[in-house]
Amino acid sequence: MSAALPPFPKPQEALDAPELLQVGSGAEVDEPCLRADAARNRARLLDAAGRLAAEHGAAALTMEGVAAAASVGKGTVFRRFGDRTGLLAALLDHSERKFQAAILSGPPPLGPGAPPVERLRAFGCALLRRSIDELDLLLAGEPSAERRHTFPPRRFLRSHVALLLREAVPDADTELLSHTLMAYLDAALLHHLTEQCGLPPERVRAGWLDLVARVTRTDPPA
Amino acid sequence: MSAALPPFPKPQEALDAPELLQVGSGAEVDEPCLRADAARNRARLLDAAGRLAAEHGAAALTMEGVAAAASVGKGTVFRRFGDRTGLLAALLDHSERKFQAAILSGPPPLGPGAPPVERLRAFGCALLRRSIDELDLLLAGEPSAERRHTFPPRRFLRSHVALLLREAVPDADTELLSHTLMAYLDAALLHHLTEQCGLPPERVRAGWLDLVARVTRTDPPA
Repeated sequence: MSAALPPFPKPQEALDAPELLQVGSGAEVDEPCLRADAARNRARLLDAAGRLAAEHGAAALTMEGVAAAASVGKGTVFRRFGDRTGLLAALLDHSERKFQAAILSGPPPLGPGAPPVERLRAFGCALLRRSIDELDLLLAGEPSAERRHTFPPRRFLRSHVALLLREAVPDADTELLSHTLMAYLDAALLHHLTEQCGLPPERVRAGWLDLVARVTRTDPPA
Repeated sequence: MSAALPPFPKPQEALDAPELLQVGSGAEVDEPCLRADAARNRARLLDAAGRLAAEHGAAALTMEGVAAAASVGKGTVFRRFGDRTGLLAALLDHSERKFQAAILSGPPPLGPGAPPVERLRAFGCALLRRSIDELDLLLAGEPSAERRHTFPPRRFLRSHVALLLREAVPDADTELLSHTLMAYLDAALLHHLTEQCGLPPERVRAGWLDLVARVTRTDPPA
């Protein structure tokens, strides 16, 4: 067995350019054109849908329920999102955008301005918190095996991890290590750990801090 | 942020008892009762199906094709496997059993008798080789997100990794680390790396050796 890492071929590195704000659903492509009241209406619907999903699970989310919770007519919800699948996609997209904004321009250590290992720790802890909150939604919208790793929101997050790893461990195969770190934050695994095995989120969070330390060969945070 | 790992609760540890030879499809439950010629016939069919799947991909596998390749009537293949889904399940099951036998009683370092880190290295390299060969089949048979981590063949392999990790890094949260190592060997990720990104298998293999070294805080093999 040889331990020597092959050189990193350029074409694969090119695949890794961060894809900023390429969110997945396409449900918001017309957002810049929305009139202010329509945009407010849309945000109110998504906030209502997000609250319902967090309280009762995404499986129980209906167009009628969202309309009632936001005090609008059912037709408004259908006009805005098309159908239930469109609503779920818009909901994930909305949360994805907020998370991407926090990474790109929010306060450190999730946002820029902290050392890379500290940003990696904060990234995983924030994503774990968000994913555990939205587990139902993430599982319902999980792409097929063939699309799972090319799905734009995932590519954005994975590229961010690869970028931080290149700063933290420049001599490592950071492409492959970034997939390993992202895999720990996978929704199906989190579902298994927290719901099927009953592990407390705090233990999963400690596991993330430990994994970052091992992967970067640093000490865990004091 | 606290780095202290919570104690490992007993109930979760119990989930982790190795599940020997719990293979997934149930397609072989009557195997001990097969007469010798029926067992030979079955093995011949599975060998033929395995060759066809390796050459043309699992998507192209048909009951008729297997019958022709094994020089038997189509009825024999249907009687033995029920339908195409049954055939695919039996094929994975067959390969799973061979792999489990190699781990439990084959020669070291994949089998017993080598130090744990060496066994981890050998395990991943062997599973990578097998999974890349059977990628089509694994993707076609991938369990849903909810069943992915409770699927018996995966539980067996994950328990094996956890067992080796407990020997190699007894003070770590080996339950969580075993999920991380298994995630690197996931079929959907391997499909992405080797087929969608064009990474050579040798680089993926080197990435495994590097990951084992980081996770166990050891040196990569010389």
